[in-house]
Amino acid sequence: MTEYSIKLVRLGDMQVIADLCVVPIGVGTSVSREVAACERVFAEAGLKTKLHAYGTNIEGEWDEVFAAIKRCHEVVHAMGAPRITSSLRFGTRIDREQHMEDKIRSVEEKLR
Amino acid sequence: MTEYSIKLVRLGDMQVIADLCVVPIGVGTSVSREVAACERVFAEAGLKTKLHAYGTNIEGEWDEVFAAIKRCHEVVHAMGAPRITSSLRFGTRIDREQHMEDKIRSVEEKLR
Amino acid sequence: MTEYSIKLVRLGDMQVIADLCVVPIGVGTSVSREVAACERVFAEAGLKTKLHAYGTNIEGEWDEVFAAIKRCHEVVHAMGAPRITSSLRFGTRIDREQHMEDKIRSVEEKLR
Amino acid sequence: MTEYSIKLVRLGDMQVIADLCVVPIGVGTSVSREVAACERVFAEAGLKTKLHAYGTNIEGEWDEVFAAIKRCHEVVHAMGAPRITSSLRFGTRIDREQHMEDKIRSVEEKLR
Repeated sequence: MTEYSIKLVRLGDMQVIADLCVVPIGVGTSVSREVAACERVFAEAGLKTKLHAYGTNIEGEWDEVFAAIKRCHEVVHAMGAPRITSSLRFGTRIDREQHMEDKIRSVEEKLR
Repeated sequence: MTEYSIKLVRLGDMQVIADLCVVPIGVGTSVSREVAACERVFAEAGLKTKLHAYGTNIEGEWDEVFAAIKRCHEVVHAMGAPRITSSLRFGTRIDREQHMEDKIRSVEEKLR
Repeated sequence: MTEYSIKLVRLGDMQVIADLCVVPIGVGTSVSREVAACERVFAEAGLKTKLHAYGTNIEGEWDEVFAAIKRCHEVVHAMGAPRITSSLRFGTRIDREQHMEDKIRSVEEKLR
Repeated sequence: MTEYSIKLVRLGDMQVIADLCVVPIGVGTSVSREVAACERVFAEAGLKTKLHAYGTNIEGEWDEVFAAIKRCHEVVHAMGAPRITSSLRFGTRIDREQHMEDKIRSVEEKLR
């Protein structure tokens, strides 16, 4: 990896836009209590989020976003879930700044 | 599989809630034109959808939802993308009816 | 969408490489019985698959792959799961033919 | 969240099994060079991994796995990708220890 070390991007200083879907296993068919607990974790972390019908958009510094995701698993286990499986999309870009609302606006402009 | 054949659930008659993120590869860094084309495909199919910052929620009959997803890949290839990789979450339940807005409301009630 | 209709790619005739992770909800913490049932569904459908620790690679014609995925949800519900959430990656390409083993070989060649 | 603080699980000490699919955007249709670079990142981190046709299984301590995933995005940007979108599944459990090969063996036993 030495060939990349000089221009190595440091993502600790970079924004990530993520989309998380947490699925507690072994707690019955309703999972909204656990999803709500994760929403509180993200709010306490000061992250910008948007809940949708199959997950939550999260935007912020890489380290803060992933620390919150870890805390989210910790909290859901502490609520009683013996097992958790999550699915996550996450994107970074170094060509330009982009926020969650920019991504939506960019699509909507093309739909007019 | 004969042991399950008698009580086999027929999902053609069942609702699915899905979340699709389509990524055209080999067309540059902007993908909003292709995402907008998929939105049009879903609208033409009469499906209930909600665009978010990392995908689109889609609700409808199983066969209609997956036919639209296929059409979406066809259209994005036709727009010039040589390669597409998509990520999809999809959920079905037979215990009770549930719509996209029910999932969100259920979480929001627990956040009050 | 009329602008794309002439050169519209028909994916019914195209190969898709997919990766499916099925999560039955409300059946306890072990999900291997349900995953095994899905493996049988894919085998009966004559699809090429490869089980890994977090899902199953599936390769085949688009319609056959997605018919098997639907049958998989039907079978897992019939086994008693009231709710299922799945995560799927799926890729198509029109620039050249590519099989599952080609994707792995292509990476491994670059690791030598 | 105070109600969960006493029995809060600390995942820094816990194993996670993950499955990562990294997609560089804006570098053409071939992505195997970037996937190979990620494999090297995981190997250098001493993580147990298994490449498959649509991603890589990764097992290890939470903090080490996610540090490697971050390094992977950094390296792929450094290789020239202006934009990256990744999809990740990750699972934790506190009821018992489970490794990647246990998950596969558990399914295969039910297929005999």
